[in-house]
Amino acid sequence: MEFSSKLLENAVNEMSQLPGIGKRTALRLVLHLLKQPEQQSQKLASALLQMRESINFCSNCHNISDTQLCKICANPRRDEKLVCVVEDIRDVMAIENTSQYRGHYHVLGGKISPMDGVGPGDLTIVSLVEKIKIGNISELIFALSSTMEGDTTNFYIYKQIEPYNITTTTIARGISVGDELEYADEVTLGRSILHRIPFESSLKSL
Amino acid sequence: MEFSSKLLENAVNEMSQLPGIGKRTALRLVLHLLKQPEQQSQKLASALLQMRESINFCSNCHNISDTQLCKICANPRRDEKLVCVVEDIRDVMAIENTSQYRGHYHVLGGKISPMDGVGPGDLTIVSLVEKIKIGNISELIFALSSTMEGDTTNFYIYKQIEPYNITTTTIARGISVGDELEYADEVTLGRSILHRIPFESSLKSL
Repeated sequence: MEFSSKLLENAVNEMSQLPGIGKRTALRLVLHLLKQPEQQSQKLASALLQMRESINFCSNCHNISDTQLCKICANPRRDEKLVCVVEDIRDVMAIENTSQYRGHYHVLGGKISPMDGVGPGDLTIVSLVEKIKIGNISELIFALSSTMEGDTTNFYIYKQIEPYNITTTTIARGISVGDELEYADEVTLGRSILHRIPFESSLKSL
Repeated sequence: MEFSSKLLENAVNEMSQLPGIGKRTALRLVLHLLKQPEQQSQKLASALLQMRESINFCSNCHNISDTQLCKICANPRRDEKLVCVVEDIRDVMAIENTSQYRGHYHVLGGKISPMDGVGPGDLTIVSLVEKIKIGNISELIFALSSTMEGDTTNFYIYKQIEPYNITTTTIARGISVGDELEYADEVTLGRSILHRIPFESSLKSL
């Protein structure tokens, strides 16, 4: 792509560094900004800069937070002995949206993935094990995505905390609500039969 | 969506102002920036700001340019009597990529579209008519997209310049190179038969 302006080329190049944004999309976004009042570009730029410079992570659960302890960890009505291990802050938001969970979280910051060069040391596993060592946690819920990387990470953490003898659970795998049985994959369907639950308790969660 | 940080929320909100970027995509982009070195966010922000503040438009053709006259208008080897009317700078880039055109351009900055509140006054039609009045142009090529808005804009300009008696042409509509006839729509196929060209001249353009 050849640009008629260096400034435009520079903006498109920087924009296309973002994941899933190619050169063509970047050009469309940048031309949109050009058509809008100058203020909009200024607001976008300063919002990004401020976020990058001043963002904080909760010292307990590593969730993004403006305060030293995040709202969830600082809430005395939440059960601090119950901890849900998630990959990143989007998972926290997704689980919070369900209003079904009243415990704490632990945000790992990723999954163990040798292909992407992410080892256990790049995640917040040490601080999780530390919390368990102190004895503050009675149950750990694994809520990572059900991929090879997620399973590897679950297993790695499981091995690390085995000596401390706490309850470890994992979120249920099964047929999504509203899904047709015939379109489900065998593994999911198989697991959902293997881990069937009493009919009465399925009524309770409605 | 509920965010655990005001700074994050602000960045996501600003990002999701861009066309085609929803809240979820914005969050993904912003979290990506958080994982990258701070420098990347700074470079993105300053590239956007610099572009928005210092960008220039060519005084002749209204293309984006760092100089008062763009490279195309300033090139003495290009035919200034031949002018191709396009919607925006992406069309200039697309036509330049073909290396088939040696004339000038005129960038309208949009199409007449009452639904979107774009009238003739919002485009650079006045300056195009001015150029034609002076008598600098011998042929005008309409290269707008073949939609109702594009056709309306073509017709509006055509009516404005009718008194000055210059040649007006429009880019050929027909079956795309590589396309199967059976999948072409009737209008395109009909036009391609109506406006058939001598076989010898189709050989020349290979």
